[in-house]
Amino acid sequence: MKKLINNPKDVVEEMVGGYVKAHPSYVKQLPENERSIVTARKTREGKVGVLIGGGSGHEPGFMGYVGEGMADGVAIGNIFASPSPDPILEVTKAIDKGAGVAYLYGNYAGDVMNFGMAAEMADLEEDIRVKAALATDDVASALKEEKEKRRGIAGEFFVFKAAGAVADFGYNLNDVIRVAQKANENTRSMGVGLSPCSLPQTGEPSFDIGDDEMEIGLGHHGEPGIEKGVIETADKVAERLVHDILADIELNKGDKVAVLVNGLGSTPRMELYIIFRRVEQILNENGIVIYRSYVGDYITSLEMGGCSVTLMKLDEELERTIDHSVDCPMFVQK
Amino acid sequence: MKKLINNPKDVVEEMVGGYVKAHPSYVKQLPENERSIVTARKTREGKVGVLIGGGSGHEPGFMGYVGEGMADGVAIGNIFASPSPDPILEVTKAIDKGAGVAYLYGNYAGDVMNFGMAAEMADLEEDIRVKAALATDDVASALKEEKEKRRGIAGEFFVFKAAGAVADFGYNLNDVIRVAQKANENTRSMGVGLSPCSLPQTGEPSFDIGDDEMEIGLGHHGEPGIEKGVIETADKVAERLVHDILADIELNKGDKVAVLVNGLGSTPRMELYIIFRRVEQILNENGIVIYRSYVGDYITSLEMGGCSVTLMKLDEELERTIDHSVDCPMFVQK
Repeated sequence: MKKLINNPKDVVEEMVGGYVKAHPSYVKQLPENERSIVTARKTREGKVGVLIGGGSGHEPGFMGYVGEGMADGVAIGNIFASPSPDPILEVTKAIDKGAGVAYLYGNYAGDVMNFGMAAEMADLEEDIRVKAALATDDVASALKEEKEKRRGIAGEFFVFKAAGAVADFGYNLNDVIRVAQKANENTRSMGVGLSPCSLPQTGEPSFDIGDDEMEIGLGHHGEPGIEKGVIETADKVAERLVHDILADIELNKGDKVAVLVNGLGSTPRMELYIIFRRVEQILNENGIVIYRSYVGDYITSLEMGGCSVTLMKLDEELERTIDHSVDCPMFVQK
Repeated sequence: MKKLINNPKDVVEEMVGGYVKAHPSYVKQLPENERSIVTARKTREGKVGVLIGGGSGHEPGFMGYVGEGMADGVAIGNIFASPSPDPILEVTKAIDKGAGVAYLYGNYAGDVMNFGMAAEMADLEEDIRVKAALATDDVASALKEEKEKRRGIAGEFFVFKAAGAVADFGYNLNDVIRVAQKANENTRSMGVGLSPCSLPQTGEPSFDIGDDEMEIGLGHHGEPGIEKGVIETADKVAERLVHDILADIELNKGDKVAVLVNGLGSTPRMELYIIFRRVEQILNENGIVIYRSYVGDYITSLEMGGCSVTLMKLDEELERTIDHSVDCPMFVQK
């Protein structure tokens, strides 16, 4: 696949370099580590720091979500790879305002290890209290009985938004983590992949799929899904994705949800809205109330084709987090 | 190319249907015409109405830009085709608050004809004063001596933003049009295409290009560019695009610009930021000051691959339009 890049080994550094130059009023790179980006705006003493991170290639995730109402800082990994503990630790030190730091990331082995090591170093070497909440929203990635093994995909956006909001509200570290975990508990995603992306260093497709095929449950690094078959209509795909979500989380008539239809990279907004149209109909038929909808590219996989549907079941506390305004380079909500 | 759609002939209706259901607090469809979308929020009596429009497939352009600080309404065409006069007229009637309506659109024959007819009908049948400003920012689409023949591409975003802002400030129709025209006069874009999109009804690629080729100056409906060649590095591409812009508009040391690096659909943000990185370096070397940067998908062509660079030269009045906050479904600026 063609790419507008220079040397493939420089893509992350050059992307990050461009990013901080594009949005200097929002974000800055730490001098200690160029993979450490923090908000350029003043944050209140005593505010819990919110730290997100993960591999590159998921933009706007993760660096795009640093700003007011979301994260105070981000640690940046190589493409589809966890950041190492160093940039995580540097961000931790930079954003701690005396109230500790909440780590939010998707449930992947590399991230669990590296964020875990950074948390230990923050505690032992820097005396900074760190707690973590992991996103495990991908229904397709493990059975309900082993929910804790599930991967985090687009639902990470709701976890970041919820935690970012309550950290802004002045919640303490335990409560920020409690809300992040509740957001995750209440969130389910199901995705469909249509076409692969390619890594700049190899140029090879991230997975194999036939010209007329789709793959339900495909992970956002190309992890195998649960079913491969001939591509169906948007309505049928939406029905399948929502069906699997509703089979996994109890949603009753009158319950409110936030909805996210997330594009994986190359799928046009036109198709995302066509998917959303059917999602809305199904929720409506079930008496489930849409509190707010997000449709677009929120957590991508380079130029992968496909989308995911995410529902977060809301209570009053989560509604307030959805309502909270956000001002980040790649996501703004008034 | 694979698409998440139902019947190809229904894509626009279904997209629009999903869109208004996703953002009911922002936009609504007019009962008179389902291709007519207007803001769901109250607008002030005496405010100049701002009407945008064009073909579908360019999302967020154009329907995504209806909201506070941008457009009051949009008329929606088929994919890559002008809206017909009827939806334009219906939007005009709905958004006129007694101060007339500004039509803003790209310079394409079909749009010129249909918006022109609608303007005439608004005048003769409805006694609504309409004036139009066209975007002609695509440097590659005609020589400087025939600037008025140029097409509008991503620079339309700046024209919409400028006019939307001053309409909000309370400018009268003549002044809204004056500012829109100044925004256009001061804006230049240059694009590069890497890979085609396909229309849902045909499934055929919108243009032919080799596996290792790029096309400089390609239009955003696949109109032929000015040079086809082997794909170059991001830095070289950025240099070429900025070079052609700087050869076309006088920008001196100390001048301020707004920058837009726009993705055509399937090009990841990673690459757009790598392009931006070099754009910033060149402007910096020339002493040109970046006032604000926008990097992302602003005016797309379905899943086309490639990007464009747009510069708008600023004076104090245009700076204020850049600063103005916006709240639309697909673009928010605080």
